[in-house]
Amino acid sequence: MQSIRWDNGELFILDQTKLPDYVEYICCKDYQTVFEAICRLSVRGAPAIGAAAAYGLVLGAMALPKKDLTNFISQVERIAGVLMSSRPTAVNLKWAIDRMLSGLAVNKFNNYDRIINFMLQEAELIYQEDLENNKNIGYYGNKLIPPGARILTHCNAGALATAGYGTALGVIRAAAEADKKIMVYAGETRPLLQGARLTTLEMINAKIPVTLITDNMAGYLMYLKKADLIIIGADRIAANGDTANKIGTYGLAVLAKAHGLPFYVAAPLSTIDIELESGSDIPIEERSGDEVTHIAGTRVAPPGVDVWNPAFDITPAELITSIITEKGIAVPPYSKSLRKLFET
Amino acid sequence: MQSIRWDNGELFILDQTKLPDYVEYICCKDYQTVFEAICRLSVRGAPAIGAAAAYGLVLGAMALPKKDLTNFISQVERIAGVLMSSRPTAVNLKWAIDRMLSGLAVNKFNNYDRIINFMLQEAELIYQEDLENNKNIGYYGNKLIPPGARILTHCNAGALATAGYGTALGVIRAAAEADKKIMVYAGETRPLLQGARLTTLEMINAKIPVTLITDNMAGYLMYLKKADLIIIGADRIAANGDTANKIGTYGLAVLAKAHGLPFYVAAPLSTIDIELESGSDIPIEERSGDEVTHIAGTRVAPPGVDVWNPAFDITPAELITSIITEKGIAVPPYSKSLRKLFET
Repeated sequence: MQSIRWDNGELFILDQTKLPDYVEYICCKDYQTVFEAICRLSVRGAPAIGAAAAYGLVLGAMALPKKDLTNFISQVERIAGVLMSSRPTAVNLKWAIDRMLSGLAVNKFNNYDRIINFMLQEAELIYQEDLENNKNIGYYGNKLIPPGARILTHCNAGALATAGYGTALGVIRAAAEADKKIMVYAGETRPLLQGARLTTLEMINAKIPVTLITDNMAGYLMYLKKADLIIIGADRIAANGDTANKIGTYGLAVLAKAHGLPFYVAAPLSTIDIELESGSDIPIEERSGDEVTHIAGTRVAPPGVDVWNPAFDITPAELITSIITEKGIAVPPYSKSLRKLFET
Repeated sequence: MQSIRWDNGELFILDQTKLPDYVEYICCKDYQTVFEAICRLSVRGAPAIGAAAAYGLVLGAMALPKKDLTNFISQVERIAGVLMSSRPTAVNLKWAIDRMLSGLAVNKFNNYDRIINFMLQEAELIYQEDLENNKNIGYYGNKLIPPGARILTHCNAGALATAGYGTALGVIRAAAEADKKIMVYAGETRPLLQGARLTTLEMINAKIPVTLITDNMAGYLMYLKKADLIIIGADRIAANGDTANKIGTYGLAVLAKAHGLPFYVAAPLSTIDIELESGSDIPIEERSGDEVTHIAGTRVAPPGVDVWNPAFDITPAELITSIITEKGIAVPPYSKSLRKLFET
């Protein structure tokens, strides 16, 4: 099961809204289908979104009329803007698109096939590097995991959220591969249940023991000393370490602090928005109230009830024990340690 | 909409599992039907369970053979034991059944009709007094609610959880009746969504503004200063103030403390287990994992995944700002203030 797969000029996106029951791929022949798949959360997770958008831009470029080079490039930029508008919080989307466009700006092509080949290679690199980065995140993160650890995670920061292996779940996979006899508590992650649907599935497939809980059980879990540490992914990390991640992450961080438990963020450098001073500048996507009032197609609340549905929240840096990246582990003060990772 | 209603020798229990869409009453002609309705959470909420069980005992007594008085009483006690075994955490169940039985022990009847009449009167009193107590809880609690307050509540501690008016929602109703222009955030309360299904419905019917959130949004809500106070009901309160309530309550209390927000518990004295020293002695019901893996009949997690599903948690007294009862407001140290309320 791969979140995305490029095959012979088409992008296949695993429709994660259908998991765990149906493994169905959406065949994208144009960038609009990729755009819609990102909006609908068929592909989700900051790194996976970035890679999908990169391939989406290739599809967009492939379909453009190849008459006027200046017009061609400006059309590619227009499509880049559309793809970037699909979701506001994850910075990997912008990072991947920027990387694609800056390559175009640097390289002076005069041959459409070469441009498209270059773009495709760049998208492949984004995808391959993400997979490699996650293995390195796992390598570093594993050092923080004691044998027998009972690990609470939230949402899905796994193979499905990335090009493969995963960030938070990459660390968990690395610890399991090191035979540390760990076990995982997966918070179900309302409203869209990525924990219940995706994280449990990944852990079962990897033969890592997993127990599902509702999000509101996390506090009592810690109170009863049933969890040793918390590890989560990220959608955007500001230069000071403030971290945007799936709604509910902030509450877990407050609970972890109150119980003296380590709270780890695992993410590649592409998730770090080093130009952004603090978390208060991160745009937080608010999604339709229907995601809360309807579950698996069934309405569970009175019709017309008001809903507040932020998709992410901000965890202040002071609640984060360390940030695990493919270049190493950053510790507070993050404004120094994160910048240093970019320089190595 | 009334949680339970006695009518001409039958108990009608509103089937709350069908709300908000269907208003259906279960007609109970025997105690077994009442027992099953409590187990299945058709009737839920500590005070409502107590009243339902009292009426259930009446139904049980009515159906007994009326030949030998000693045997009759011991059969009533046996049925009382069955009803008490339906759910372990809410103490109101035991409180109501004990009250019914102690009346039997004190009164020396020799006429079966008189016994049953006495029991029915006692059940009616339990029901009527609960309604009255909730009005008084509202009266006292309203003093704690500032004008314009944005109030976060969890689960349903409303008319549906009691004989009427509600405990936590009783305070909210009283504040709204005092024209304080309050608004309510209802946590949806996974797994069984009592907040999404019941609290929103009660608030909409009472024309009190309500916004639904998933449980994991509570932290970010407080972080953004969108809530001014938290008020919840209780299933059992120990003599030292430790409070068992719906799973997720403890996490909210930790978050409230971290954000400097008042955290109020509203409950009648029948919820206080004054013989129980601390919360660690309160039995916490664990329910079927299916409640977590299935929502509205649809499976949302991989088949066979392990689940942890405690129905309640314990909030230590030190996280509780005050406990609002029908006799007044108790403040720390609760070991003194709660006992005092029983003596007035």
